[in-house]
Amino acid sequence: MAVGSGELPHLHVVEGFRLGIASAGIKTPGRRDIVVMEIATGANVAAVFTKNAFCAAPVQVAKQHINLTATRYLLVNTGNANAGTGEQGLGSAQLSCEHLAQLTGVSREAILPFSTGVIGEPLNVAKIASALPAAIDDLSQDNWANAATGIMTTDTRPKASSLQFEFAGELITVTGIAKGAGMIKPNMATMLGYIATDAAVSKACLNLMITEAVNQSFNRISIDGDTSTNDCCVLVATGAVKAVEVADVNSPLYQPLQEAISTIFIELAQGLVRDGEGASKFVTVKVAGGKDEKECLDVAFTIAESPLVKTALFASDPNWGRLLAAIGRAGLDDLDVNKVSLHLNEVLIAEKGCRASSYTEEQGQAVMNQEEITISVDLDRGDQQTTVWTTDLSYDYVRINADYRS
Amino acid sequence: MAVGSGELPHLHVVEGFRLGIASAGIKTPGRRDIVVMEIATGANVAAVFTKNAFCAAPVQVAKQHINLTATRYLLVNTGNANAGTGEQGLGSAQLSCEHLAQLTGVSREAILPFSTGVIGEPLNVAKIASALPAAIDDLSQDNWANAATGIMTTDTRPKASSLQFEFAGELITVTGIAKGAGMIKPNMATMLGYIATDAAVSKACLNLMITEAVNQSFNRISIDGDTSTNDCCVLVATGAVKAVEVADVNSPLYQPLQEAISTIFIELAQGLVRDGEGASKFVTVKVAGGKDEKECLDVAFTIAESPLVKTALFASDPNWGRLLAAIGRAGLDDLDVNKVSLHLNEVLIAEKGCRASSYTEEQGQAVMNQEEITISVDLDRGDQQTTVWTTDLSYDYVRINADYRS
Repeated sequence: MAVGSGELPHLHVVEGFRLGIASAGIKTPGRRDIVVMEIATGANVAAVFTKNAFCAAPVQVAKQHINLTATRYLLVNTGNANAGTGEQGLGSAQLSCEHLAQLTGVSREAILPFSTGVIGEPLNVAKIASALPAAIDDLSQDNWANAATGIMTTDTRPKASSLQFEFAGELITVTGIAKGAGMIKPNMATMLGYIATDAAVSKACLNLMITEAVNQSFNRISIDGDTSTNDCCVLVATGAVKAVEVADVNSPLYQPLQEAISTIFIELAQGLVRDGEGASKFVTVKVAGGKDEKECLDVAFTIAESPLVKTALFASDPNWGRLLAAIGRAGLDDLDVNKVSLHLNEVLIAEKGCRASSYTEEQGQAVMNQEEITISVDLDRGDQQTTVWTTDLSYDYVRINADYRS
Repeated sequence: MAVGSGELPHLHVVEGFRLGIASAGIKTPGRRDIVVMEIATGANVAAVFTKNAFCAAPVQVAKQHINLTATRYLLVNTGNANAGTGEQGLGSAQLSCEHLAQLTGVSREAILPFSTGVIGEPLNVAKIASALPAAIDDLSQDNWANAATGIMTTDTRPKASSLQFEFAGELITVTGIAKGAGMIKPNMATMLGYIATDAAVSKACLNLMITEAVNQSFNRISIDGDTSTNDCCVLVATGAVKAVEVADVNSPLYQPLQEAISTIFIELAQGLVRDGEGASKFVTVKVAGGKDEKECLDVAFTIAESPLVKTALFASDPNWGRLLAAIGRAGLDDLDVNKVSLHLNEVLIAEKGCRASSYTEEQGQAVMNQEEITISVDLDRGDQQTTVWTTDLSYDYVRINADYRS
């Protein structure tokens, strides 16, 4: 199951960024499970990584490499996360980079490795090595859609997004792909994201931009509250468009480019939620009227991660009592429940701590029958707000996660 | 589904405590949904209440009443939580007490009301009032088992526990009942608990004892991380055994009585978990080697509430990678994953951040096939430890919670 059509938009090429896909048969024979991405010289690269203390071997290696030299290749495998694999796993991640380095003539440190799949199994580097030549042969600027499929695990469909905008007479492109369907929650979850622009951006500005974009997108989604050992997101600025550049935060291109990048990040993040494991609903949770953003997030994620709320969403049951109970246990100091109001889409459900007098079950049911639902909470105690996105909790979620290794 | 036989033990009567059950037809015609408990004069009563900001009307009333006068009656209805019902709900809770007060000749404030069931629907006080005479007629010291059934909602079976011990030649009894099957998590969840002893205990000591017992029991369980608007737990000391008493914390009876009370609380809490919604496994999560109890609890509850861990438990899948990932995202500062070790029952699964060299999948599978499983984590960074209890996440959990209102 997944919400919406999932049809990929046209994916504009990004000059200076090529993608190649191949099959190494890591978990499933014949599956295209290796993606190599080539970054032109002169590009800048920024990345954010999982905060899970058990971060996987490739994450540890990528975090080192990105600080050592200019990144030239990204190497992704699915089918095996190379996580919980100790020293042996670190060696496997380094060796994978070494193989690609020898084939491409760059240093090992110019390669960032990424793995996703089952945790705790040794990674078969020989299989990866044997598939690398085919992946390199396949490198093409037009390969975004194939790469989006190549990085999938339990995803039921690829996620990609792309836009172009004009600035000072120059056409600037931002295109990205992502994978992830479960174990998704703030601070990067089982997700991988690769986004590139042909704009020229200083490394410092690119780091600011990815942080801002991730905070608006991947750190605002939750499918099941679990976060993974392997999550990474990479933002590349190839600099192929040379006429304008973002040298610092005061550059005129900074703000429009940030908005374009954030738009792509948000579309990718929402794509992950729409394809959330077992998802039959796409749910937007908006919390306004908070004293600060943190308390808005606490309420939003308590709702978004409540199994009782999520099963009610799956049942299309306007069980607003469960929403109030979730708000009430979010841990806000001195919450005056008599000020809290709650909407489902445009329908006022509850106010002053109880059901709104105007509310009828039919109104709530009409909203809950829809595939896309917005839950809006107003705490009425401040002027801060936030938005997160989540899914329902269905039989299929249990089936997928009870069957994953079998 | 539920774990274990669920057969009730012999429930010893507690002198000075009588229970009566009747049918008010609040939600289901003919269902015995009213329980009245009568407390002899001279008893002391302590209670703890939900910390949910949206606490239900009866909780607000009970919190007031217990501080105004000696409690003489407890009045429980199922089928309707009288929560999210605003001013009208408060009036309904008070009116329910008023009806019982008139029938028993005590003040309204001597009655504590309790409601459990659907949130947000008005409580039909007339139905309760009409059933009260039958409940009073039914009052008996021998009615513990019937009352355990009378307070059930989505529970599949009653929970009760009882023990006796001798102290200074006196036989002392502790007997209790509880309900709850979902929405269960620390700080009291959708659970009601009523525990009585015939010991004589000062009010101050009784308050200490219930706090200690709840911290060891109901605050150490989680079925789905949700907490409710209505949870309450009441501890009554009737003082029928007059030869010995707990006047202060230095009384010789204090410690043995605390242990007996805590034992009953823990058995009731475990009974809730064994009957957790859709439960097919009873899971004990032990975390040792923490710097303080809080970080042990953070790790234990992150494991206990991880949907990925819980679905793996449902599938009897020794997916220890999900356990490591849960430990890693529990938010501990500077966790050295290379020191963490993990056991399933007696089997060493992981150490030094990866799979133990001695571990085989067959060993893990043999443990996971059992109905009762202990997950033990050693953080190896301190001498604190804790234990919590939880269940798996099954199709039935989704079914029960998607169907509850229909």
